[in-house]
Amino acid sequence: MSYFKHHVFFCCNQRKPGETSCNDHHATEMQTYAKDRIAALGLKGRGNVRINKAGCLGRCDDGPVLVVYPDETWYTYVDREDIDEIIESHLANGRVVERLRLPEAP
Amino acid sequence: MSYFKHHVFFCCNQRKPGETSCNDHHATEMQTYAKDRIAALGLKGRGNVRINKAGCLGRCDDGPVLVVYPDETWYTYVDREDIDEIIESHLANGRVVERLRLPEAP
Repeated sequence: MSYFKHHVFFCCNQRKPGETSCNDHHATEMQTYAKDRIAALGLKGRGNVRINKAGCLGRCDDGPVLVVYPDETWYTYVDREDIDEIIESHLANGRVVERLRLPEAP
Repeated sequence: MSYFKHHVFFCCNQRKPGETSCNDHHATEMQTYAKDRIAALGLKGRGNVRINKAGCLGRCDDGPVLVVYPDETWYTYVDREDIDEIIESHLANGRVVERLRLPEAP
Protein backbone atom coordinates (compact mmCIF):
# COMPACT_ATOMS: atom_id res chain seq x y z
CA MET A 1 0.00 0.00 0.00
CA SER A 2 1.20 3.50 -0.81
CA TYR A 3 2.27 5.75 2.02
CA PHE A 4 0.10 8.41 0.38
CA LYS A 5 -2.55 7.39 -2.15
CA HIS A 6 -2.21 10.77 -3.86
CA HIS A 7 0.81 12.94 -3.07
CA VAL A 8 0.33 16.40 -4.56
CA PHE A 9 3.11 18.93 -5.13
CA PHE A 10 2.34 22.54 -5.96
CA CYS A 11 5.14 24.50 -7.59
CA CYS A 12 5.33 27.56 -5.34
CA ASN A 13 8.42 29.05 -6.92
CA GLN A 14 8.81 32.82 -6.95
CA ARG A 15 11.21 34.24 -9.52
CA LYS A 16 12.42 37.79 -9.84
CA PRO A 17 10.03 40.46 -11.16
CA GLY A 18 9.73 40.21 -14.93
CA GLU A 19 10.29 36.43 -14.96
CA THR A 20 7.34 34.06 -15.18
CA SER A 21 6.79 31.91 -12.11
CA CYS A 22 4.01 29.76 -10.70
CA ASN A 23 3.73 31.90 -7.62
CA ASP A 24 2.66 34.85 -9.78
CA HIS A 25 -0.50 32.80 -10.29
CA HIS A 26 -1.33 32.53 -6.58
CA ALA A 27 0.29 29.09 -6.25
CA THR A 28 0.98 29.36 -2.53
CA GLU A 29 -2.56 30.58 -1.86
CA MET A 30 -3.98 27.70 -3.95
CA GLN A 31 -1.78 25.18 -2.11
CA THR A 32 -3.08 26.40 1.24
CA TYR A 33 -6.63 26.28 -0.08
CA ALA A 34 -6.18 22.70 -1.31
CA LYS A 35 -4.58 21.61 1.97
CA ASP A 36 -7.45 23.04 3.99
CA ARG A 37 -10.10 21.51 1.70
CA ILE A 38 -8.47 18.06 1.88
CA ALA A 39 -8.46 18.29 5.68
CA ALA A 40 -12.08 19.46 5.76
CA LEU A 41 -13.13 16.56 3.53
CA GLY A 42 -11.39 14.05 5.83
CA LEU A 43 -9.01 12.98 3.05
CA LYS A 44 -5.78 14.04 4.75
CA GLY A 45 -3.03 11.73 5.94
CA ARG A 46 -1.34 8.35 5.67
CA GLY A 47 -2.86 6.09 3.06
CA ASN A 48 -4.81 9.02 1.72
CA VAL A 49 -3.89 12.49 0.41
CA ARG A 50 -1.03 14.88 1.15
CA ILE A 51 -0.76 18.39 -0.28
CA ASN A 52 2.81 19.74 -0.43
CA LYS A 53 4.64 22.86 -1.40
CA ALA A 54 7.60 22.37 -3.73
CA GLY A 55 10.29 24.44 -5.35
CA CYS A 56 10.36 24.96 -9.12
CA LEU A 57 9.01 21.84 -10.85
CA GLY A 58 10.70 22.73 -14.12
CA ARG A 59 7.59 23.37 -16.22
CA CYS A 60 7.51 27.16 -16.03
CA ASP A 61 6.03 27.58 -19.52
CA ASP A 62 3.05 25.44 -18.51
CA GLY A 63 2.56 27.19 -15.15
CA PRO A 64 1.01 27.36 -12.74
CA VAL A 65 1.54 23.62 -12.34
CA LEU A 66 1.01 20.88 -9.81
CA VAL A 67 1.77 17.18 -10.05
CA VAL A 68 -0.03 14.22 -8.46
CA TYR A 69 2.14 11.19 -7.64
CA PRO A 70 2.40 8.23 -7.89
CA ASP A 71 -0.33 8.78 -10.52
CA GLU A 72 2.15 10.98 -12.42
CA THR A 73 -0.59 13.37 -13.47
CA TRP A 74 0.37 17.00 -14.18
CA TYR A 75 -2.20 19.78 -14.00
CA THR A 76 -2.48 23.47 -14.57
CA TYR A 77 -5.19 25.55 -12.92
CA VAL A 78 -6.56 29.07 -12.80
CA ASP A 79 -8.65 29.43 -9.68
CA ARG A 80 -10.32 27.72 -6.71
CA GLU A 81 -12.94 26.18 -8.96
CA ASP A 82 -10.21 24.30 -10.83
CA ILE A 83 -8.64 23.17 -7.56
CA ASP A 84 -12.06 22.03 -6.32
CA GLU A 85 -12.54 19.99 -9.48
CA ILE A 86 -9.12 18.31 -9.12
CA ILE A 87 -9.92 17.52 -5.47
CA GLU A 88 -13.43 16.23 -6.04
CA SER A 89 -12.77 14.32 -9.23
CA HIS A 90 -9.19 13.07 -8.97
CA LEU A 91 -8.17 13.11 -5.31
CA ALA A 92 -11.50 12.01 -3.87
CA ASN A 93 -12.69 9.73 -6.68
CA GLY A 94 -9.69 8.78 -8.82
CA ARG A 95 -11.00 10.36 -12.03
CA VAL A 96 -8.43 12.46 -13.94
CA VAL A 97 -9.61 15.95 -14.93
CA GLU A 98 -8.73 15.88 -18.61
CA ARG A 99 -9.46 19.54 -19.31
CA LEU A 100 -6.74 20.66 -16.86
CA ARG A 101 -4.25 17.89 -17.56
CA LEU A 102 -0.83 18.70 -19.02
CA PRO A 103 0.97 16.33 -21.37
CA GLU A 104 3.46 14.01 -19.66
CA ALA A 105 5.68 13.25 -22.58
CA PRO A 106 8.80 15.42 -22.86
CA MET B 1 6.90 8.45 -21.30
CA SER B 2 7.26 10.13 -17.91
CA TYR B 3 7.98 13.82 -17.82
CA PHE B 4 10.70 12.95 -15.31
CA LYS B 5 11.96 9.36 -15.04
CA HIS B 6 12.81 9.94 -11.38
CA HIS B 7 11.36 12.98 -9.61
CA VAL B 8 13.02 13.37 -6.21
CA PHE B 9 11.64 15.46 -3.36
CA PHE B 10 13.76 16.30 -0.33
CA CYS B 11 11.88 17.34 2.78
CA CYS B 12 13.60 20.62 3.67
CA ASN B 13 11.27 21.59 6.46
CA GLN B 14 12.63 23.61 9.36
CA ARG B 15 10.63 23.50 12.58
CA LYS B 16 11.11 25.59 15.68
CA PRO B 17 14.10 24.87 17.96
CA GLY B 18 13.40 21.81 20.10
CA GLU B 19 11.19 20.17 17.44
CA THR B 20 12.60 17.49 15.15
CA SER B 21 12.80 18.45 11.50
CA CYS B 22 14.54 17.16 8.39
CA ASN B 23 16.44 20.37 7.96
CA ASP B 24 18.21 19.76 11.28
CA HIS B 25 19.90 16.93 9.37
CA HIS B 26 21.31 19.16 6.63
CA ALA B 27 18.43 18.42 4.24
CA THR B 28 18.80 21.63 2.23
CA GLU B 29 22.55 21.12 1.92
CA MET B 30 22.00 17.50 0.80
CA GLN B 31 19.36 18.59 -1.76
CA THR B 32 21.79 21.10 -3.26
CA TYR B 33 24.51 18.45 -3.31
CA ALA B 34 22.22 15.95 -5.06
CA LYS B 35 21.07 18.56 -7.59
CA ASP B 36 24.65 19.46 -8.47
CA ARG B 37 25.73 15.81 -8.74
CA ILE B 38 22.80 14.97 -11.04
CA ALA B 39 23.75 17.90 -13.28
CA ALA B 40 27.42 16.89 -13.27
CA LEU B 41 26.51 13.33 -14.24
CA GLY B 42 24.38 14.55 -17.17
CA LEU B 43 21.22 13.05 -15.65
CA LYS B 44 19.31 16.32 -15.23
CA GLY B 45 16.16 17.29 -17.08
CA ARG B 46 13.11 16.18 -19.02
CA GLY B 47 12.79 12.44 -19.39
CA ASN B 48 15.51 12.00 -16.82
CA VAL B 49 16.00 13.18 -13.19
CA ARG B 50 14.78 16.23 -11.27
CA ILE B 51 15.82 17.03 -7.70
CA ASN B 52 13.32 19.21 -5.81
CA LYS B 53 12.94 20.88 -2.47
CA ALA B 54 9.64 20.26 -0.69
CA GLY B 55 7.89 21.31 2.47
CA CYS B 56 7.23 18.81 5.27
CA LEU B 57 6.59 15.38 3.76
CA GLY B 58 4.80 14.16 6.87
CA ARG B 59 7.31 11.53 7.98
CA CYS B 60 9.14 13.52 10.65
CA ASP B 61 9.82 10.48 12.84
CA ASP B 62 11.66 8.81 9.95
CA GLY B 63 13.63 11.92 8.99
CA PRO B 64 15.57 13.09 7.25
CA VAL B 65 13.51 11.75 4.35
CA LEU B 66 13.29 12.04 0.60
CA VAL B 67 10.91 10.35 -1.83
CA VAL B 68 11.47 9.25 -5.42
CA TYR B 69 8.40 9.32 -7.69
CA PRO B 70 6.78 7.77 -9.66
CA ASP B 71 8.78 4.88 -8.19
CA GLU B 72 7.23 5.69 -4.81
CA THR B 73 10.45 4.87 -2.98
CA TRP B 74 11.10 6.58 0.36
CA TYR B 75 14.62 6.94 1.73
CA THR B 76 16.41 8.22 4.75
CA TYR B 77 20.07 9.25 4.64
CA VAL B 78 22.87 10.46 6.84
CA ASP B 79 25.54 12.00 4.65
CA ARG B 80 26.85 12.59 1.15
CA GLU B 81 27.92 8.97 0.84
CA ASP B 82 24.29 7.89 1.26
CA ILE B 83 23.16 10.45 -1.30
CA ASP B 84 25.85 9.26 -3.71
CA GLU B 85 24.63 5.68 -3.31
CA ILE B 86 21.02 6.68 -4.01
CA ILE B 87 22.15 8.61 -7.10
CA GLU B 88 24.47 5.96 -8.48
CA SER B 89 22.31 2.93 -7.70
CA HIS B 90 18.72 4.14 -8.00
CA LEU B 91 18.69 7.34 -10.05
CA ALA B 92 21.37 6.34 -12.54
CA ASN B 93 20.73 2.59 -12.70
CA GLY B 94 17.24 1.89 -11.37
CA ARG B 95 18.36 -0.29 -8.46
CA VAL B 96 16.68 0.50 -5.13
CA VAL B 97 19.06 0.97 -2.18
CA GLU B 98 17.44 -1.38 0.31
CA ARG B 99 19.59 -0.40 3.30
CA LEU B 100 18.29 3.20 3.17
CA ARG B 101 14.73 2.43 2.14
CA LEU B 102 11.82 3.31 4.43
CA PRO B 103 8.65 1.20 4.57
CA GLU B 104 5.85 2.44 2.32
CA ALA B 105 2.92 0.91 4.10
CA PRO B 106 1.14 3.21 6.56
